[in-house]
Amino acid sequence: MLLEKTIGEVGMLHERPMAEARERLDSLIKPPGSLGRLEELAIQLAGITGNPRPVVGDRVIIIMAGDHGVVAEGVSVAPQEITHQQLPAFLNGVAGIGVLGRLAGARLVVVDVGVAVPVDYPGVLNRKVRPGTGNIARGPAMTREEAVRAVEVGIEVVQEEIDRGATLVGLGDMGIGNTTPSSAIAAALGGFDPGEVTGRGTLVNDEVLQRKIEVVSRALEVNRPDPADPLDVLAKVGGLEIGGLAGVILGAAARRVPVVIDGFITTAAAMVAVALQPRAREFLIPSHLSGERGHRLILEHLGLVPMLHLNMRLGEGTGAALAMHLVEAACRIINQMASFSEAGLTALDGEKILK
Amino acid sequence: MLLEKTIGEVGMLHERPMAEARERLDSLIKPPGSLGRLEELAIQLAGITGNPRPVVGDRVIIIMAGDHGVVAEGVSVAPQEITHQQLPAFLNGVAGIGVLGRLAGARLVVVDVGVAVPVDYPGVLNRKVRPGTGNIARGPAMTREEAVRAVEVGIEVVQEEIDRGATLVGLGDMGIGNTTPSSAIAAALGGFDPGEVTGRGTLVNDEVLQRKIEVVSRALEVNRPDPADPLDVLAKVGGLEIGGLAGVILGAAARRVPVVIDGFITTAAAMVAVALQPRAREFLIPSHLSGERGHRLILEHLGLVPMLHLNMRLGEGTGAALAMHLVEAACRIINQMASFSEAGLTALDGEKILK
Repeated sequence: MLLEKTIGEVGMLHERPMAEARERLDSLIKPPGSLGRLEELAIQLAGITGNPRPVVGDRVIIIMAGDHGVVAEGVSVAPQEITHQQLPAFLNGVAGIGVLGRLAGARLVVVDVGVAVPVDYPGVLNRKVRPGTGNIARGPAMTREEAVRAVEVGIEVVQEEIDRGATLVGLGDMGIGNTTPSSAIAAALGGFDPGEVTGRGTLVNDEVLQRKIEVVSRALEVNRPDPADPLDVLAKVGGLEIGGLAGVILGAAARRVPVVIDGFITTAAAMVAVALQPRAREFLIPSHLSGERGHRLILEHLGLVPMLHLNMRLGEGTGAALAMHLVEAACRIINQMASFSEAGLTALDGEKILK
Repeated sequence: MLLEKTIGEVGMLHERPMAEARERLDSLIKPPGSLGRLEELAIQLAGITGNPRPVVGDRVIIIMAGDHGVVAEGVSVAPQEITHQQLPAFLNGVAGIGVLGRLAGARLVVVDVGVAVPVDYPGVLNRKVRPGTGNIARGPAMTREEAVRAVEVGIEVVQEEIDRGATLVGLGDMGIGNTTPSSAIAAALGGFDPGEVTGRGTLVNDEVLQRKIEVVSRALEVNRPDPADPLDVLAKVGGLEIGGLAGVILGAAARRVPVVIDGFITTAAAMVAVALQPRAREFLIPSHLSGERGHRLILEHLGLVPMLHLNMRLGEGTGAALAMHLVEAACRIINQMASFSEAGLTALDGEKILK
């Protein structure tokens, strides 16, 4: 079974290249540690790839799209057809991720893992597991088999991209209504109150927000997902694109390729992936702190600290795209800066320095 | 007098292009406001430049270098010669800002406004006002005339670069010991306790940190700078490169060119510039939240919210360089995304949306 096999393939970070990267960074013409998160990123990339002088080559942003039966409860302001209408705009380059993906030098891979209507647009990968989820306020989102299949779609898609040369993967989502199942996953796997991790999504008003919180609570009561069984949580209160994104994380981690997460939905997917395989966490690179309520909490739950504070709440992978510039910066630092001895500079006195 | 003239030339943001930019952003295929700070940046750039569809052309990072007599008090771990030794490394591209400036597509302009020793390195602009400041723990940093001259150096340098085509300016600093006068400026102009705005600079230990706080307190006691007179503060407890950077801000604002600030030192310079001309604030773009204690406070004092949280504390303009990518992203969004009608998508129902 692909999922089991992939989970088993996720390894630990390589210690030796991390130590070599750290030593190199400490030798560069700057106070040790003064490039902060960029240095940590370079070290993490060394541990992921095994290369003490990591580089970023081909980058890809994988956008998983799916629909959500729970929109019948009135939890979203935007009409469901936006989900499929946006897909051509991603590929045409005129949506947010079209523009920012191009700026990041990333290819976009758009996958229909569960859009409600048939999608016949050139360039969109058809990997539909089912046409939208069931309404989680009244029953399960999908069967356990469908949940496994959604995750496996993500594994397959990312590993095809890695076979084509991708060395850095970003996550993006599209699915009207998908903040609601993401909140339900966050509550189930993270032990949060629904009110703590349910936000306004696409700018809903106070009344709709209150309804969303009630819907998330009801989804948990009706379905009783088992917090110790991430596939049960995904099947009962999750989403198809969320499963697909969890699969992208696992599939990339198994091949030792770093994954940049985006906002609230992709972080909920990361909770599923990390619950299935805790080692996957080490392959994740956080990007931005979303404006969506609860994002900070679930990032903290995963032990991830966001680098960009832009109050964005679009999804699509827009935050992941922006963070790829920081990953590139980290690699440039370790490869292009000179050491004190190379530059012929007076070194800092190590004894006086508090490392 | 150049300084007076420049201060008088700083105008207000243009309202009309800002309103047009806001309208365009709200029409794009995304929920209104969902690109957060990127949208605010695009609107600010429209107001600065007068172009409702702002673009970023040539970018330059101006690094002002100077030395500080206060190093005699043992407030810095790094030896003073690092100040001039780093300058070739900036231009050779092997220092932090060399690498990140290149990644940002920015030209570096390195200015000796007050290095303690003669600097004879091709490419470094010699605009030395005096060879280092006096020891602020025992007397003034410089005369009032020298302070004015330092600010005017910044005005002249940035306006030469604007004449050559620069449309976006980043600030960088180099000067061993310059966190100490920056803290003194922050305390004097912001009304903060020295302990609130004095940090570890280049990784000093607890003992040196305590000494730094005492030195900042003593500098304020000995010199008694007038908080209502920013030039008095700059002359008595400031630095030559800090004055130069304040001048870069005023000179760019007078020509309606946006300025990306960097970390603690350049933010202290921004306090001087904004104290001289409050309208200059609208031309500032914050970049990162430095790891230096007090940076958050002085940014708040200026009403600026940082976008990058990378725990960096190198200076040189490294944070400004990284933030230029976000400025570029903001311009790409407003110019390259399609509107709902252009893309033929179902628009969101404005009545249901909480703007």
